[in-house]
Amino acid sequence: MATNRLIFLPLGGAGEIGMNCYVYGYGPEDKERLIVVDLGITFPDMDSTPGVDVIMPDLAWLTARRDRIEAIFITHAHEDHIGALAHLWPQLKSKIYARRFTATIGRMKLEEAGHPVEAITVVEPRPAVVTAGPFKVQFVPVAHSIPESAALIIDTPAGRIVHSGDFKLDATPIVGEPWSPEAFAAIAAERPVKALMCDSTNVFSANPGRSEASIREPIRDLIKGARGMVVATTFASNVARLKTLAEAARAADRSVCLLGRAMQRMVKAAQDSGVLTDFPPLIPPEQAVDVPRGNLMLIVTGSQGERRAATAQLSRGKYLGLEMKEGDTFLFSSKTIPGNERGVISIMNAFSEMGVDVVDDPSGKYHVSGHANRPDMQTLHRILKPEMLLPMHGEHRHLREHCRLAEAGGIASEVATNGMMIDLTGDEPEVAEYIETGRIYLDGSVLIGARDGVVRDRIRMALNGHALITVLLDESNAALGDAWVELMGLPQTGKRGGSLAEAIEEELGEFLAGAPAKVMRDDEKLDEAIRRIARQVAMEEIGKKPEVTVVVSRLMES
Amino acid sequence: MATNRLIFLPLGGAGEIGMNCYVYGYGPEDKERLIVVDLGITFPDMDSTPGVDVIMPDLAWLTARRDRIEAIFITHAHEDHIGALAHLWPQLKSKIYARRFTATIGRMKLEEAGHPVEAITVVEPRPAVVTAGPFKVQFVPVAHSIPESAALIIDTPAGRIVHSGDFKLDATPIVGEPWSPEAFAAIAAERPVKALMCDSTNVFSANPGRSEASIREPIRDLIKGARGMVVATTFASNVARLKTLAEAARAADRSVCLLGRAMQRMVKAAQDSGVLTDFPPLIPPEQAVDVPRGNLMLIVTGSQGERRAATAQLSRGKYLGLEMKEGDTFLFSSKTIPGNERGVISIMNAFSEMGVDVVDDPSGKYHVSGHANRPDMQTLHRILKPEMLLPMHGEHRHLREHCRLAEAGGIASEVATNGMMIDLTGDEPEVAEYIETGRIYLDGSVLIGARDGVVRDRIRMALNGHALITVLLDESNAALGDAWVELMGLPQTGKRGGSLAEAIEEELGEFLAGAPAKVMRDDEKLDEAIRRIARQVAMEEIGKKPEVTVVVSRLMES
Repeated sequence: MATNRLIFLPLGGAGEIGMNCYVYGYGPEDKERLIVVDLGITFPDMDSTPGVDVIMPDLAWLTARRDRIEAIFITHAHEDHIGALAHLWPQLKSKIYARRFTATIGRMKLEEAGHPVEAITVVEPRPAVVTAGPFKVQFVPVAHSIPESAALIIDTPAGRIVHSGDFKLDATPIVGEPWSPEAFAAIAAERPVKALMCDSTNVFSANPGRSEASIREPIRDLIKGARGMVVATTFASNVARLKTLAEAARAADRSVCLLGRAMQRMVKAAQDSGVLTDFPPLIPPEQAVDVPRGNLMLIVTGSQGERRAATAQLSRGKYLGLEMKEGDTFLFSSKTIPGNERGVISIMNAFSEMGVDVVDDPSGKYHVSGHANRPDMQTLHRILKPEMLLPMHGEHRHLREHCRLAEAGGIASEVATNGMMIDLTGDEPEVAEYIETGRIYLDGSVLIGARDGVVRDRIRMALNGHALITVLLDESNAALGDAWVELMGLPQTGKRGGSLAEAIEEELGEFLAGAPAKVMRDDEKLDEAIRRIARQVAMEEIGKKPEVTVVVSRLMES
Repeated sequence: MATNRLIFLPLGGAGEIGMNCYVYGYGPEDKERLIVVDLGITFPDMDSTPGVDVIMPDLAWLTARRDRIEAIFITHAHEDHIGALAHLWPQLKSKIYARRFTATIGRMKLEEAGHPVEAITVVEPRPAVVTAGPFKVQFVPVAHSIPESAALIIDTPAGRIVHSGDFKLDATPIVGEPWSPEAFAAIAAERPVKALMCDSTNVFSANPGRSEASIREPIRDLIKGARGMVVATTFASNVARLKTLAEAARAADRSVCLLGRAMQRMVKAAQDSGVLTDFPPLIPPEQAVDVPRGNLMLIVTGSQGERRAATAQLSRGKYLGLEMKEGDTFLFSSKTIPGNERGVISIMNAFSEMGVDVVDDPSGKYHVSGHANRPDMQTLHRILKPEMLLPMHGEHRHLREHCRLAEAGGIASEVATNGMMIDLTGDEPEVAEYIETGRIYLDGSVLIGARDGVVRDRIRMALNGHALITVLLDESNAALGDAWVELMGLPQTGKRGGSLAEAIEEELGEFLAGAPAKVMRDDEKLDEAIRRIARQVAMEEIGKKPEVTVVVSRLMES
């Protein structure tokens, strides 16, 4: 009989913040039964992924082993954990388990994509157990910046694993269950924890995290003191924050209006799934228009500066009949995710031009993080006393620092980035194998591989411009008329004041008139020669070498 | 006789941080004699200016009035103040004045561009005076993050102006003259200050700025405690910081090697101009390779993650024979400018993968800003007691906040962004006129206008891809063969698994076979129809509409 082993394999989220996807396996080598935890996305940016809609983990390894997958578990409904569900589920077709609120969001996604919503089963929190092959899985409520986030207890014949999910230690989370050290102590008391897979996001934050409730008072004071209209933005899924903001508005005699589809969906999902029961009444934008500014508060999407979200729309002028004016207040109850600074700053300046007071306290007076800080992580380590710790949900620097923290506390640890299969069977984590992983892009309506070259070509066109050259040859391979040059994303005029396109055409004319027959006959050689000439003339005229596409049309003898 | 007036006109730097360029004028309306203060650049980014080399203010207004320009003054040698000098000087051809170090850098730039270095005249600090038409200008040494930064005293028949330049109040600046409240009090005592044009960068920083000397001890301790090789990066032009770093290295028995052309140039310029006299001896990279790691420190360029600078090179592997290893220390003695986060973070992660300890204290233990903070600005306001204050060197939100600060202190103020001509003649700043301003790009070797559409087309190709369609028509306007489609930056395969190019070609084939003669005859109509079909097929196949270039070749009767 083959020996069974317990493995852990991150396919996304380890070595990056985003597109979380982790695999656990138990069984004989290469025959392990598998479960998948989370199917998240990452967002594209202009520098590396222009034109791409969303970025997802490449599941090639998993899909090749589809018959071994027992189930998919989703820890919570943030896009970096659930965002790829509808896009990638067709590759896996496995049963999905989630808590009620997460399931509500997941079903919306499946439904929109035309997949069966019954794929998702709602699970009650521990002590309820889902049996999935050799795995017994329980959902443990944890506080985070979205309702019903969960850690997972994954029991296997080789031991108990705790997968932290995204969590913070919050005794007063406004919405959802408070942090309970006793509940976690009970988990470790019930059965020793072999391995803790742990959120690493805030490992560099030296002070204990602050509670969601700690910003209630400052927000209330701020809104009470405001004169004109107040507009606040936060992450749409932060339902506790929406509640804090809406209640502060009510306390200041302001009607509340939500702007942005994502926010309306989240509030509806939270109400439908029962996690949000006493949200203040809302008015629609059509009605908000008639409310005196001093009695109105808008809560809006777009805290990261997204161009089409409500915040950006308001920074450009009237949106759904509503408009910001001198003396209004705009509150960023959020932090700017690295990479989004430029967009957010440009919105702040647009508001400044309107005379709006932008409140964006960098000390976090009006925002707290949803992740455990360094001392909080240590608290969890101490309570669970795992034999080993695998850091997840972090860039390499976060994972490495989290490992050091664990090891300083006497816990065996290892930096396992995407594609590193870790054998957890022994006393220490051991690298079992390196799996080929990567990213796939949703681009429009199709999935493309990160290495297909499509995006690389877009970046090249953006940096270098694109020259298109059409040449027509007759039956004897002689040029018929002049070469024709079209430029896109390139200056029309060269250094010497003449047309760049004409300069290239002229040079090509000379070349075509004198090129040897063996070049004129050979598509590849001709293409290469034309490209070289075009790039060289462009270099002389405008100091840069464009991307070049050559189309040679040959007239055939009829 | 016409009344004389005193005007102020920012052409760059007011409403943005970057490309500083300010104009002062005195004389009858529309006949004012002019001086220009600073000619700076701004750096491009992939989001808004892909492929562009540098961004500069559009000087169309100035060049149309070239005969009225008396002189150009450069306050200091940072790129956002001097970077456009060589590119734009040919448009102005005016005399340039600067202090010695700034002049050294400026002459290097002029020389490289083939312009006469004698255009720059070196000016000694106050009490030396440059007379430029109705203006008498003195350079007042101020502390900043580069040697020999200067404020300008601009005396005019209508009153005294102080143009702060970039400054901080630093009593112990390591290199250069310490802040002296007495010297500034003397300026106001000598002649009342009509207007203060003042640096606004750090108006949101609530605490007094810290001295360059305050980080000397922490840096020394850090380097003394390091085991392996130490590498530190900072802004190349921060000569005081280079000195602090190099001295800390020497104190820890480490030889110092500078990597990066910009840094070597700066140190040479500082030594040549006499501002840096006791810099520790340096060793070249060839020699550094043989020094034991524990006795070596590199000071390198690229603190902002620039792809081709030494920091990024080291993060990718061996550079000039030098390589980072486990146990080495990398110090960011710098702050990340908003927008550069992603690049810097990716470098940090690359170092983390090598086992290098990255030190990047967000509290500023190893870095101080070169700009005055809010209370420091107030100190300067109080000492100079200007009649009015015009904030500069800031985004709109900085300028607005600085205005409020001034007004709270009883000083008349106005937000004057690029293109707003301000009349300073009366008791309060008054908007005289709105000038058309903008940005021009250095793109390769040519200057292009920001509104030329070139960069817009690049962005569109990056987001949407580019489809090229070639159609060949015979003498009777009938299609000769099939339409030919080339794709760049687009998925090859559509939703239904077939070739996207072929799907478009097929649809075009049908269209061309049946199109009415009046369309086939008309280039514009044909182009439009082909473009529409291509975009529609692409939308169906891949869910996005590409940019399309159509080339119709018509065979002429011979």
